[in-house]
Amino acid sequence: MSSSSVNLKAVPGRLTSSYSEVQASRLDVSLPLPSVLKSSFSVVDGPKSSAAGNPEEIAKLFPNLFGQPSAVLNPGGSSVLSKDTSLKIGVVLSGGQAPGGHNVISGIFDYLQHCTSGSTVYGFKGGPAGIMKGKYVELSAEFVYPYRNQGGFDMIASGRDKIETPEQFKQAEETAKTLDLDGLVVIGGDDSNTNACLLAEHFRGKNIKTRVIGCPKTIDGDLKSKEVPVSFGFDTACKLYSEMIGNVMTDARSTGKYYHFVRLMGRAASHITLECALETHPNITIIGEEVAAKKQTLKSVTDYITDIICKRSELGFNYGVILIPEGLIDFIPEVQQLIAELNEILAHDVVDEAGVWKKKLQSQSHELFEFLPPTIQEQLLLERDPHGNVQVAKIETEKMLLQMVETELDKRKQEGKYKRDFLGKTHFFGYEGRCGLPTNFDANYCYALGFGAGALLHSGKTGLISSVGNLAAPVEQWTVGGTALTSLMDVERRHGKFKPVIKKAMVELEGPIQFLGPAANAINNTLLLELGAQA
Amino acid sequence: MSSSSVNLKAVPGRLTSSYSEVQASRLDVSLPLPSVLKSSFSVVDGPKSSAAGNPEEIAKLFPNLFGQPSAVLNPGGSSVLSKDTSLKIGVVLSGGQAPGGHNVISGIFDYLQHCTSGSTVYGFKGGPAGIMKGKYVELSAEFVYPYRNQGGFDMIASGRDKIETPEQFKQAEETAKTLDLDGLVVIGGDDSNTNACLLAEHFRGKNIKTRVIGCPKTIDGDLKSKEVPVSFGFDTACKLYSEMIGNVMTDARSTGKYYHFVRLMGRAASHITLECALETHPNITIIGEEVAAKKQTLKSVTDYITDIICKRSELGFNYGVILIPEGLIDFIPEVQQLIAELNEILAHDVVDEAGVWKKKLQSQSHELFEFLPPTIQEQLLLERDPHGNVQVAKIETEKMLLQMVETELDKRKQEGKYKRDFLGKTHFFGYEGRCGLPTNFDANYCYALGFGAGALLHSGKTGLISSVGNLAAPVEQWTVGGTALTSLMDVERRHGKFKPVIKKAMVELEGPIQFLGPAANAINNTLLLELGAQA
Repeated sequence: MSSSSVNLKAVPGRLTSSYSEVQASRLDVSLPLPSVLKSSFSVVDGPKSSAAGNPEEIAKLFPNLFGQPSAVLNPGGSSVLSKDTSLKIGVVLSGGQAPGGHNVISGIFDYLQHCTSGSTVYGFKGGPAGIMKGKYVELSAEFVYPYRNQGGFDMIASGRDKIETPEQFKQAEETAKTLDLDGLVVIGGDDSNTNACLLAEHFRGKNIKTRVIGCPKTIDGDLKSKEVPVSFGFDTACKLYSEMIGNVMTDARSTGKYYHFVRLMGRAASHITLECALETHPNITIIGEEVAAKKQTLKSVTDYITDIICKRSELGFNYGVILIPEGLIDFIPEVQQLIAELNEILAHDVVDEAGVWKKKLQSQSHELFEFLPPTIQEQLLLERDPHGNVQVAKIETEKMLLQMVETELDKRKQEGKYKRDFLGKTHFFGYEGRCGLPTNFDANYCYALGFGAGALLHSGKTGLISSVGNLAAPVEQWTVGGTALTSLMDVERRHGKFKPVIKKAMVELEGPIQFLGPAANAINNTLLLELGAQA
Repeated sequence: MSSSSVNLKAVPGRLTSSYSEVQASRLDVSLPLPSVLKSSFSVVDGPKSSAAGNPEEIAKLFPNLFGQPSAVLNPGGSSVLSKDTSLKIGVVLSGGQAPGGHNVISGIFDYLQHCTSGSTVYGFKGGPAGIMKGKYVELSAEFVYPYRNQGGFDMIASGRDKIETPEQFKQAEETAKTLDLDGLVVIGGDDSNTNACLLAEHFRGKNIKTRVIGCPKTIDGDLKSKEVPVSFGFDTACKLYSEMIGNVMTDARSTGKYYHFVRLMGRAASHITLECALETHPNITIIGEEVAAKKQTLKSVTDYITDIICKRSELGFNYGVILIPEGLIDFIPEVQQLIAELNEILAHDVVDEAGVWKKKLQSQSHELFEFLPPTIQEQLLLERDPHGNVQVAKIETEKMLLQMVETELDKRKQEGKYKRDFLGKTHFFGYEGRCGLPTNFDANYCYALGFGAGALLHSGKTGLISSVGNLAAPVEQWTVGGTALTSLMDVERRHGKFKPVIKKAMVELEGPIQFLGPAANAINNTLLLELGAQA
């Protein structure tokens, strides 16, 4: 064992005795398994896989894994998986929380309890750093129990560190060897699963026995493919946000005088905003992908909102709710251009009070800068990250839009085109949703993902992401398998090198797939069940 | 009928066919009544009442109502209330939403249906303005049904107008006469109930038959007395906020790196913050009343928070949740003093960039101003209301405190007393809670308040606030009656005149009364019931 390894005392961080009734009532809710996992199954390989893009580059980056088939669990058949096998499996939570993570771990633990004998599960503490530092806890039934069907990632906590440098791979390797790990399950988003695949490749290349399986996690819903229909946590988070949005909508209708600008989490894609819009039917919804596709500007988005407010006012409605994705401005090229120019200027020049510095901006960027509300202008100039760059993530988009709409309405009022006193309120729904109690859907889905990950490791697979499908059907009919992580990958050029990436899934503008796809019905059924309508 | 009277078409604004399953499931949940309301009862007067303060001034302001007894409904006895009576009753929602308002109206409607014959209920639209403008809707069973047990005030909408001037009293009088109103129920907070009492006095004084009964509404929980143990909506709002706070706490524990500064609604008193703290046990809770009692300054509040953060850091905990009441700065005298000085300076002088104007501040205020984060300084100087005054309500207290804590931690870090990189996040939980689905407690309580208000009007009472007590017992054992509104009043001197006011109930610092008072158990039971633990 490396000198820094710390096997923390296996005492759960939660006492069920202090649980609220609803938390306690969720503890023993039984978790149905897909029927394929309930009796003997065989693990069947599919055809040779390729990559999502640039297969020749992916092949170079993953010489040992590229092309490997995806696997599917088929019922019956003569399973080669021995119940007498004893496995040592590590599990790690990587990145931001998503409801259901504890159930993935429960699923892995239960698989090993039921389908192997004398196995051990190590929970690495605080994310990938726990692997590198050899900081872990050995899981027991007593340790895992309080977390069943509960929100949060606090069973073993999470972290955002990555295993990237040769030294870090070496550290991970040492921990794997020290603990004699047969397998590792990485529960994370697109980056973490890419990292999991690199680790699988590394171990395979060095003939280390540790196999690596990923699990699709992110409330943002942007890690999905044909075989991974949804990332876990998305369902719960959207329902939590929708409840709050619904309340705000009732509030708007009751007072009849406020427009609520609601920013929703989800920076790279607008899935959460779209799903919440489908669930709650707000007055206006801005989808980042649509803004990008239509090449809209901040001015045109502002005008779009203002036009609707004016139209509604003519009809006698002076209130409403507007949903805005957190990442909106990342979808607007002119904003990206302005920020790039600002980063350049702020790095080399003095920003004078009189504004002479603005002459260095290109005319389109200058115009946009002048269009921004003063508080946002100031934020762009003052708040910088340690590298001196403008902190785009800190811009409160909902406040910015509200101020721009106010300015536009003032103008129209002076022109006699709008007659009311506009009142706006802003909200950001984010952290409240990441740690909620998982819905039945997320609880079941995660348990199956974890159970399936156990089966994949047991059958010797590596470099796959646990994949549970046919989600619109009852749980019994769900399919279970693993998708080759390399088949989800493309490359990006960074610092002159090709880097493998799992492409983020964006909102498809060709149609509201949530209405048609398998997840649509599952989500509705879950909503009914979770809120007690089954009683 | 006055020419401006508008009897709006009695079509409900909501279609139950579009309800979510949980909304639909709440519609037909039966509302148990206190047993005294289920068979014949007599209305018994108590002793002559006085006032909460300055009885001689209250007596002058309410010559017709002062001293009248409170009333209690006693079971059995020979009721003088005839089932053949036909009453015309108006109802109005006044001020901000609170979950349960629709059930008060349902209670009034059902009382009249069951205990009188051929009665009519008018719902005044958009708050007291609806009374003055004669804008109303005649309620029918079909109209009321979709709103049973549902959140919001949108059945008839609310408003913040007051009936104050002689002309406005005249308008209200005309509507009362035109509709031949026997009674009016005013559902509102302290101001609205004061207004209700003035209206009752006005009608009594002019021998108009219209009687006025109030109902205690506000999520803030600051309208309560011995006989009115809690205002409706407080229970639901606190539970909604607590759910979100609980999620944020799990999030904090899972990431292990953020301090969440959560501002909670409730400007004048800190009841919501206290109740949420009792429900969720955050790391730090700031109670405005305590800050005032200890004569704390912004600096001492900042130090208090910073000290705990440093202490926790020494113990290895670099995360946490801090609850802050919306009205915090109103409790800090030095801030009030600064704002008063700023209002004076901004009204008469030019604020120069160089800051020479600051010399006009008294030294304590100058020091405080310099202590404030730059963004708050700017907000104080730039954002003014139409009267030119600083907009205190717009200050985001949680962001201000976060910035001050950051500054203090930076200082301590330079001194070697703190070693971490501090990361803070801010939240405001407010509007999401005002319109949630009422808890069982609020649903039942409101229904009893409305039913009781009907009984009080039926028995000819005026100038009382509907009072339901013994709330820790099962609903059957709740007491029902009316408290003389004048007995809750004191006077305040405004513009050289005495104005009657119902004193806001502040957080009692002598002990956490929520642990001991009757509402404590009721709240817990409700939580269990509402979240389905009864199943």
